[in-house]
Amino acid sequence: MRAQNRANNQIREAVIIPHYLDHMPGSVLIQLGKTKVICAVNIEDKVPPFLRNSNQGWLTAEYAMLPSSTPVRTQREYGVSRQGRSIEIQRLIGRSLRNAIDLSQCKERTIQIDCDVIQADGGTRTASITGAFVALSLALKAFQIPDSAIIRQIGSISVGIVKGEIMLDLDYNEDSGADADFNLVMDNNGEIIELQGTGEKKPFSSNELETVLSYGKKGIFELMELQKKALLAI
Amino acid sequence: MRAQNRANNQIREAVIIPHYLDHMPGSVLIQLGKTKVICAVNIEDKVPPFLRNSNQGWLTAEYAMLPSSTPVRTQREYGVSRQGRSIEIQRLIGRSLRNAIDLSQCKERTIQIDCDVIQADGGTRTASITGAFVALSLALKAFQIPDSAIIRQIGSISVGIVKGEIMLDLDYNEDSGADADFNLVMDNNGEIIELQGTGEKKPFSSNELETVLSYGKKGIFELMELQKKALLAI
Amino acid sequence: MRAQNRANNQIREAVIIPHYLDHMPGSVLIQLGKTKVICAVNIEDKVPPFLRNSNQGWLTAEYAMLPSSTPVRTQREYGVSRQGRSIEIQRLIGRSLRNAIDLSQCKERTIQIDCDVIQADGGTRTASITGAFVALSLALKAFQIPDSAIIRQIGSISVGIVKGEIMLDLDYNEDSGADADFNLVMDNNGEIIELQGTGEKKPFSSNELETVLSYGKKGIFELMELQKKALLAI
Amino acid sequence: MRAQNRANNQIREAVIIPHYLDHMPGSVLIQLGKTKVICAVNIEDKVPPFLRNSNQGWLTAEYAMLPSSTPVRTQREYGVSRQGRSIEIQRLIGRSLRNAIDLSQCKERTIQIDCDVIQADGGTRTASITGAFVALSLALKAFQIPDSAIIRQIGSISVGIVKGEIMLDLDYNEDSGADADFNLVMDNNGEIIELQGTGEKKPFSSNELETVLSYGKKGIFELMELQKKALLAI
Amino acid sequence: MRAQNRANNQIREAVIIPHYLDHMPGSVLIQLGKTKVICAVNIEDKVPPFLRNSNQGWLTAEYAMLPSSTPVRTQREYGVSRQGRSIEIQRLIGRSLRNAIDLSQCKERTIQIDCDVIQADGGTRTASITGAFVALSLALKAFQIPDSAIIRQIGSISVGIVKGEIMLDLDYNEDSGADADFNLVMDNNGEIIELQGTGEKKPFSSNELETVLSYGKKGIFELMELQKKALLAI
Amino acid sequence: MRAQNRANNQIREAVIIPHYLDHMPGSVLIQLGKTKVICAVNIEDKVPPFLRNSNQGWLTAEYAMLPSSTPVRTQREYGVSRQGRSIEIQRLIGRSLRNAIDLSQCKERTIQIDCDVIQADGGTRTASITGAFVALSLALKAFQIPDSAIIRQIGSISVGIVKGEIMLDLDYNEDSGADADFNLVMDNNGEIIELQGTGEKKPFSSNELETVLSYGKKGIFELMELQKKALLAI
Repeated sequence: MRAQNRANNQIREAVIIPHYLDHMPGSVLIQLGKTKVICAVNIEDKVPPFLRNSNQGWLTAEYAMLPSSTPVRTQREYGVSRQGRSIEIQRLIGRSLRNAIDLSQCKERTIQIDCDVIQADGGTRTASITGAFVALSLALKAFQIPDSAIIRQIGSISVGIVKGEIMLDLDYNEDSGADADFNLVMDNNGEIIELQGTGEKKPFSSNELETVLSYGKKGIFELMELQKKALLAI
Repeated sequence: MRAQNRANNQIREAVIIPHYLDHMPGSVLIQLGKTKVICAVNIEDKVPPFLRNSNQGWLTAEYAMLPSSTPVRTQREYGVSRQGRSIEIQRLIGRSLRNAIDLSQCKERTIQIDCDVIQADGGTRTASITGAFVALSLALKAFQIPDSAIIRQIGSISVGIVKGEIMLDLDYNEDSGADADFNLVMDNNGEIIELQGTGEKKPFSSNELETVLSYGKKGIFELMELQKKALLAI
Repeated sequence: MRAQNRANNQIREAVIIPHYLDHMPGSVLIQLGKTKVICAVNIEDKVPPFLRNSNQGWLTAEYAMLPSSTPVRTQREYGVSRQGRSIEIQRLIGRSLRNAIDLSQCKERTIQIDCDVIQADGGTRTASITGAFVALSLALKAFQIPDSAIIRQIGSISVGIVKGEIMLDLDYNEDSGADADFNLVMDNNGEIIELQGTGEKKPFSSNELETVLSYGKKGIFELMELQKKALLAI
Repeated sequence: MRAQNRANNQIREAVIIPHYLDHMPGSVLIQLGKTKVICAVNIEDKVPPFLRNSNQGWLTAEYAMLPSSTPVRTQREYGVSRQGRSIEIQRLIGRSLRNAIDLSQCKERTIQIDCDVIQADGGTRTASITGAFVALSLALKAFQIPDSAIIRQIGSISVGIVKGEIMLDLDYNEDSGADADFNLVMDNNGEIIELQGTGEKKPFSSNELETVLSYGKKGIFELMELQKKALLAI
Repeated sequence: MRAQNRANNQIREAVIIPHYLDHMPGSVLIQLGKTKVICAVNIEDKVPPFLRNSNQGWLTAEYAMLPSSTPVRTQREYGVSRQGRSIEIQRLIGRSLRNAIDLSQCKERTIQIDCDVIQADGGTRTASITGAFVALSLALKAFQIPDSAIIRQIGSISVGIVKGEIMLDLDYNEDSGADADFNLVMDNNGEIIELQGTGEKKPFSSNELETVLSYGKKGIFELMELQKKALLAI
Repeated sequence: MRAQNRANNQIREAVIIPHYLDHMPGSVLIQLGKTKVICAVNIEDKVPPFLRNSNQGWLTAEYAMLPSSTPVRTQREYGVSRQGRSIEIQRLIGRSLRNAIDLSQCKERTIQIDCDVIQADGGTRTASITGAFVALSLALKAFQIPDSAIIRQIGSISVGIVKGEIMLDLDYNEDSGADADFNLVMDNNGEIIELQGTGEKKPFSSNELETVLSYGKKGIFELMELQKKALLAI
């Protein structure tokens, strides 16, 4: 049995607080258990050189952890020591959110997503994606970009295999003991946008993968209800 | 008259929330008006090479702003582009807090202070110092370092001269129109630990400086009451 | 029909040349169609600080492209501009190969894998993994590390969905038109070590994923025959 | 008594040699005791992007120490290791000199100040400011920018509190034993442009601050006589 | 006697394979003994800012070693650690090739030379120059730049003094024992384009220099025959 | 005829001022015409890791130009932009001075040479070597390292070919019009330690090289007289 009597296919307590910051057009604080991430979206009236005169927008994302967000303090990522992990994660966030939006409806603007982890307890990258979707929707609204620019709702969750058991939404403790772990991004039809599975300690089978996908879908659909509430709460 | 009918020698609404983070031995969220800073203190059992076998502790500080903390998004400070402003501020924070502590009572440990600005509306560096003092006290307690290691209570506030009027605790709007501005760090006897005055647009006189110091002292003494409450609230 | 009458589940012409370099204990040149990668393995008698006195080895990987390997010249990755893509890929290579080896049988040594792309035409990361497995085996032999240190044979291939058709081992042209693409690392039992699927332009379904996995397995098993030949050819 | 029978409110022997370099429109060598700084001013017909078409000039400063300028050799500041101290100092130099000049009379030009310490024996930042004022005036003359662009004469000096005694213009030995030290920039009316006071080892009182300001004013006024001579000497 | 009965004025077995890469307009693999270098030339329709509207081309070169090219693995040159040696070599390559070409016949194009060492056994910089001349000629032909743009054929070789004996085309073993070593670039008239002589362990005399030049000329003239064959082989 | 009626084989007015800095054990200011370089030598009681317990010293050099040393201001070389030119020069300085000294007589010490150009008018690298030899000798004396550690006197000068005429010790104007230029380091027997010749605009012949060497020898021998005087002047 997991901590706090959580069932294997149950997500942690989840909260999405919209309009968390005063200065940004779109922002949320998303919490999954003890994991807390500020997702903020800023929109600027310019695009990178290769998109000028394309009448096409651009979306990019950054991800970082506060040094004090982790049990063992994390070094700030100045200079060349930028961790591969952060770069990998922010590429994933950007790729996923670009799947949710029709950038041709955004004019020549840059949509900048910032996901900053205030406290980390597993699942920070998937929480970032789920929160960023809400912050993005809020920012588009603030800039009066038409609703149709959002082409699909997306959400994300992690799944793991721990001692042979498949478990949804791992916290840090569970994650560090997992044989395999998965990050999953899906849309509201249950189609897969991104699937990353790593047999960190043990390879996994296609059968296991099937269960992973069904657990993940359940979790993501629950988070999507929270996303909708946060967007209505405005 | 200032926004929200604030008198010239009145600070903004101030809040200090202790134990804001789960993983760090000492942490607070400090708010002054819309300015919000997370101050966290981590303690490690090692010192830089030049202090080894000195039976002496070390204290160092870092300061950064979240990109989404400012009205115009701030670029992350990777690589060589580290802004001089942040470096200057974190040096000030470290210097000030080293004045509050007797490092010879801390054994060979490094006390790492992290001040991360979640939202900026003027006075982030002085709020960082005021908040960090509380986080530091909490962390020492958690590590059972004797009370006597805190040799004086310190607090900090900003003051400015705006169109000839001296004003306490400027918000961003006031600050950007100021002719001169001041950052002040004092101890609980009203003695000065750090005084930085800049005639950004106009030189100032010793007479003006006197009023600046008395306003500052009033503000810092009020913040010191909040510090005490936060420390008792444990 | 694909270029050169290739069937959808057919890999490109593949060659693995063992002992390609004179100075390294293990090395190959691997070619898949026009894609050419030098995989070299170097072994040093030291480990990173955190493994000292652990009687445990370490394995790490680096990946880079020659500037002249791509149709449009690629900038060298000096300094802070290190591309996220390369970092992501070398993390994948390292993770995959660590799955093939029992580092506790390697003493306190660092196994350094270098994958340098001489010519790129799609599938450079999966070719790197497939080639690196052979170079790794050669290097272990040269250092007389027991055969049992290799705990499983691994291979890797890419798969894509192009206009609704699932295709194995995409070349650059096919890849740039793909709706979704997959990188797959498997062991010789057909179990999955790493699975990365991205709906770059369109989400994909679990049904499609199933076919992707079966094509991938076929391709990887064929490459594993080549790996074995290269190892026998010594 | 101080070294060489210096009174507490007495500056060290000071020399300003104008036109020290052949290639720059304005330059001096300034010496205060053993401290030697080359201050050079270069003027270019361009401004940073944000000032284009503003009909406004720009002034910026850099400060560095030769490696051989200090008793213990100082590392060159390449790369990310740029010392916070140097950045802080060059920001102070730039801010101070911008107070001396009306940039709207300088057209769209960049005035670049370089202060390079040849030998350091305390007070290098204040010597830099005092010397840079002369170099700036020389450079404006060389570019036939009207005299009215200089809106006030500025000078700078350091003061310290050593074992309870207030002392003007500390050398390195005195400075390293000081309880508090101050850098002061004033104009020719004795108004304050910049005041930085740090109770490095002990807080200081407003009374002490008063004496510090009067000593500082005396020293700066003496240096201003030297500045005038150097400018007449042309 | 040297390894493999080589006479002192004899070069190692040399091979130049033209069109070694598919994507670049000009490329070769050059081998001198065990030394192997890929020389590639790319041409782009743009020049650096200072050459815009000059109707003049630009030529620049980069040189790097694969980490696995040397007996002791060479670290990749990311970030600030870029080795002085590589920079020195690529400056030499660029300078030498600019001597072979009339850039005013190349329009506003940038000719980018990349020399990447696959395997190093002495003489990599001179092999790079000799190979790059062929790759450059091939690339000009591919871009239909007139033959007259090549103003002279150039080639390069190393010479050394080992225990008093002058030896042509040192391999790594010979080079590491040499008292003095020389890199020589000549044109097809035997005139000198670049001469670098270093008395690494012992100064050398003008008499020795004379013999060095005559051995070098012999070697370069032999390599020039190979260059011609490679260019005819197209 | 050259500026100031200089004959083609005549050096510029040369001055070497020993003990130019107070803090370093060895230092000079060397002037050749308008070229001015501070050469300083510092000695520390430690060596790089690879020399520990070798009873062998180490010598390394750095070279830089003050930004205000050149007619067009030179950017400071922070970060990755470190110019290849400076690196090349400091490698040359280090290599040359290592030829003058027997490091086995210096114990495990690091000899750090700093050459900082105050004003540049051609020949800064050769002036650096000539000046550094004196500073090195002074520093060894200050550390009571035996005279026999200096195994040969070295000096350096530049030579050029300008419109067919061979000229000694070029100033900046002459140098920028030269067809070929040479940097020459010799010992007091006239043997060559370093010879770098570049046919920047035109190849040169062995005959021309001979005259270059004889002019260079004359100049270096004259500078060696100055070196001796500076060392006696102590």
